Amino acid sequence: MKIKNILTDYYKIPLPTVMTDSTHGVMRFFELITVRVQDNNGNEGLGYTYTVGAGGNAIRNLIETDIKPILINENCELIENLWKKMWWHLHYVGRGGLPVLAISAIDIGLWDLKCKSMKTPLWIALGGNCAEVKAYAGGIDLQLSLDELLLQTQKNIKNGFKAIKMKVGRELLSEDYERVSEVRNLLGDDYHLMIDANMGWSVEKAIKASRTFANLNIYWLEEPTIPEDVLGYSRIQNEGNLPIAAGENFKSIYEFKNLINQGGVTFPEPDVSNCGGITTWMKIAALAEANNLKITSHGVHDLHVHLLASIPNSSYLEIHGFGLDNFIKNPLKIHNGIARAPNSYGHGIEFKWDKLNSI
Amino acid sequence: MKIKNILTDYYKIPLPTVMTDSTHGVMRFFELITVRVQDNNGNEGLGYTYTVGAGGNAIRNLIETDIKPILINENCELIENLWKKMWWHLHYVGRGGLPVLAISAIDIGLWDLKCKSMKTPLWIALGGNCAEVKAYAGGIDLQLSLDELLLQTQKNIKNGFKAIKMKVGRELLSEDYERVSEVRNLLGDDYHLMIDANMGWSVEKAIKASRTFANLNIYWLEEPTIPEDVLGYSRIQNEGNLPIAAGENFKSIYEFKNLINQGGVTFPEPDVSNCGGITTWMKIAALAEANNLKITSHGVHDLHVHLLASIPNSSYLEIHGFGLDNFIKNPLKIHNGIARAPNSYGHGIEFKWDKLNSI
Repeated sequence: MKIKNILTDYYKIPLPTVMTDSTHGVMRFFELITVRVQDNNGNEGLGYTYTVGAGGNAIRNLIETDIKPILINENCELIENLWKKMWWHLHYVGRGGLPVLAISAIDIGLWDLKCKSMKTPLWIALGGNCAEVKAYAGGIDLQLSLDELLLQTQKNIKNGFKAIKMKVGRELLSEDYERVSEVRNLLGDDYHLMIDANMGWSVEKAIKASRTFANLNIYWLEEPTIPEDVLGYSRIQNEGNLPIAAGENFKSIYEFKNLINQGGVTFPEPDVSNCGGITTWMKIAALAEANNLKITSHGVHDLHVHLLASIPNSSYLEIHGFGLDNFIKNPLKIHNGIARAPNSYGHGIEFKWDKLNSI
Repeated sequence: MKIKNILTDYYKIPLPTVMTDSTHGVMRFFELITVRVQDNNGNEGLGYTYTVGAGGNAIRNLIETDIKPILINENCELIENLWKKMWWHLHYVGRGGLPVLAISAIDIGLWDLKCKSMKTPLWIALGGNCAEVKAYAGGIDLQLSLDELLLQTQKNIKNGFKAIKMKVGRELLSEDYERVSEVRNLLGDDYHLMIDANMGWSVEKAIKASRTFANLNIYWLEEPTIPEDVLGYSRIQNEGNLPIAAGENFKSIYEFKNLINQGGVTFPEPDVSNCGGITTWMKIAALAEANNLKITSHGVHDLHVHLLASIPNSSYLEIHGFGLDNFIKNPLKIHNGIARAPNSYGHGIEFKWDKLNSI
């Protein structure tokens, strides 16, 4: 089966509420870049990636100008082979950055196409472990008042979530401590509570914060400092004594390997839409399993539910819609904190194209 | 002084001869992306970056769509500040890949503008060590026949070069050995001879090759394997016992730090047009100096002559035109293997825009 055509599109997805975290500042919209990979049998695979507001146009441009020409007429079943072809074609301008987001979108589209051709759900094709995946509610809530934060938490409890993540990184550590304490009080001890610093801290501050939160039963501390500081992560985890989640900004198996080998992470957190696609995500999961670690996910929960359902070492699925649910025909439903990988062929995600085109 | 406007352009530069190396395959043209940063005093700084054939359109798109809007009306003298602003604005799609090439072009343009405003040559503004820089002739010659290779070498000797680099990575190591031996015989022992594998080898093969070349007085072995394999580089250098040059694919100070700290490199080789610009290049030079290492350069010799002239720990300047000399009004001249940093304001490079626009 050959790749006959690849359609690409670019959309600005307005966020339901303006989001802020300690690094990315104010986010009013996300950029969605879609690819539709069509084979000469009339099948179509859907892939996509997103950005937090910059670079989306260049991703689409790169796919149209430099990726599409080397894929047309290639055998769409040889995904591993095509993946390396893209990696090396873009190597001089790649090895990271938005070229990897472009490769991710194509790779997701190719896997969707392959699964549709095989008439198999993605999570089954990738291995098939268990359709049910534990989910947590991820709040982008650094700027919420304490009252708003507690209200959001109550809503999440009411919706059946058993695990919740909140942002930290307010100006004063004492503010962070008060907010996390109040949420922990509201939840009681049976809920899992994660905190996310979005790279906002120095290593010293992250260690100090970890020790400050010691009595609050934190399930993981996410991205305490910049992703490049591998030795820093190792120190934070060892000296701070909280399990670390990290990886949403990593763009290769090598970056994950380095952090894992250095003892800097307990919950690797690859994002299929920016780490290199399904092909790379599954290798990271294998790397984690070999190191006795469970994998969590970042963003795009409609895709990640398949990946976490396929592997034996899944931790929580992050539920984090970025406003995209409004544009998906059958968005993922969570019942009592559990998501279920769908049994339609491929990943089963269908966009409301008319609605996207009318933004 | 404020940034009033930024003009961007994209050109396909035909190569004088088709080039091949062990990884990038056949290269018929390079992509040149230029930026002209204009301030509200009527001054203009010129920056540029290039690719080996893919991604150039996306670089221009990224600058136009996402970088230009955050720079207009900013103070053009605060380069460090603007650099971080670009890095974090693009962080989600950045940390590597073509966003760093885009930042590099802007950064070079900002430095040129600043030096012109100060009426100072770039190499003086950056520190000023010695205008004269040793240069070597870099051949892209993997596919040349032995006769052609020796002819090229004779030409380089006649042109006064005292140091020459050649490609390795032919199918059989014995072929590489024969070619390097013949070039060494032609040169005699007083010339420096470097070899470049362009990432084509496994760690084992690189160690074996290094030992094979032990009697040929190799000045450095360049990029023996993929840039991600930091521990591999350390093994190759230690077990193979040849000095290693590496870094043309590194896109941050962190990548250089990792390789240096692991003992995987003797000659760090940052490329100002892809490592993050002059701002990053100078930090890498400082990192190298602190580790008792000399810096060499990759490509864009018209720019690198300034940088190597500004620091106390410069090794050789690579002379490697990529066909760009035909489009520069005053291309760098080498006499007896020595290049001289010009004393015009800024970097002094002026493109022949009419000729570029008529490609």
